Amino acid sequence: MANTRRDVLDAARALLNRTSLGDLSMRRLATDLGVRPNALYWHFPNKQTLLAALGDDILAVIGTPDSSLTWDDQLTSLATSLREALLSVTDSAELVSSSWASGLSQMTVADQIRGVALIGGLDADDAQAVTTAVCQLTIGLTIEEQTRIQMERLGVAEPSGRDFAGEFDAALRVVVDGARHRASTAVGAH
Amino acid sequence: MANTRRDVLDAARALLNRTSLGDLSMRRLATDLGVRPNALYWHFPNKQTLLAALGDDILAVIGTPDSSLTWDDQLTSLATSLREALLSVTDSAELVSSSWASGLSQMTVADQIRGVALIGGLDADDAQAVTTAVCQLTIGLTIEEQTRIQMERLGVAEPSGRDFAGEFDAALRVVVDGARHRASTAVGAH
Repeated sequence: MANTRRDVLDAARALLNRTSLGDLSMRRLATDLGVRPNALYWHFPNKQTLLAALGDDILAVIGTPDSSLTWDDQLTSLATSLREALLSVTDSAELVSSSWASGLSQMTVADQIRGVALIGGLDADDAQAVTTAVCQLTIGLTIEEQTRIQMERLGVAEPSGRDFAGEFDAALRVVVDGARHRASTAVGAH
Repeated sequence: MANTRRDVLDAARALLNRTSLGDLSMRRLATDLGVRPNALYWHFPNKQTLLAALGDDILAVIGTPDSSLTWDDQLTSLATSLREALLSVTDSAELVSSSWASGLSQMTVADQIRGVALIGGLDADDAQAVTTAVCQLTIGLTIEEQTRIQMERLGVAEPSGRDFAGEFDAALRVVVDGARHRASTAVGAH
């Protein structure tokens, strides 16, 4: 019963890495922690809130990009860090998508990307559009990649031979080109 | 036992629209059709194959864009049609993502988008990169939107007030700007 919020998040992450998002239940998590399910609700009022906190925790590893980089390289750096953070925990792209849908996530990485787009001289609407494009490309492709990883882990599919990292880098360059175009046509472009 | 492949796909789509992707099982589908589960395996060797055929069937509504449009407007038209097709069936963005991961989908819409990018003068690598960006933005954001729809349907979330269509259109314009930039710098650009 001496579990902290941190203990619960760590156990949830470990459970996810051993199983899948579909197996992450409050009951199973309580068993792993050796407590009754009620004890979890002390920290998280419901499963949605726990999932949102876990998603935010998984992405908390994404640091501020090196400010000596140009803004567009900072954009690429943030997107690449987002993908790496998602890939570090089983099924977390689907988890993050769901927690963004719930409105319970802090969505800090979206703020970071928007901030870099604003540094690039984009207006607020364009910065938001670039943020949506970068985040959804990254989350969308990583959901597909993590689904494939689970299929291979379960033995229902052979290794695909796909180069997901290469697919991601190439598609991200298209989005960053689009962002650069917006910056070049922005009022007061610098 | 007189069910055709078409009957099975129609019943699967109807079941999905009444429930969710998590509830779409071969057993439940057989019950809906009034047959034993074995009868389904006559048409589809396993659930993955059925899901891939269902995903392809949902996207079959996407027609060839009006060839009097410029290539970049055709790109926008295809992406918009992809989103509309996905939104027409419950949870189908997640279904399509999963079926693309399995390698069992025809991925016809990706061929259509790649074809339009080639018409725009992009080389094969750039056309593939644009295809990935367009498809994953569309699928990624629609997964989030359909998750939200399910949360609202289940009563665990109030209407979000988000303008998903507006978010999509704005982010798509960034990707299409990136595609246009590639076309303008392509060797032999026209």
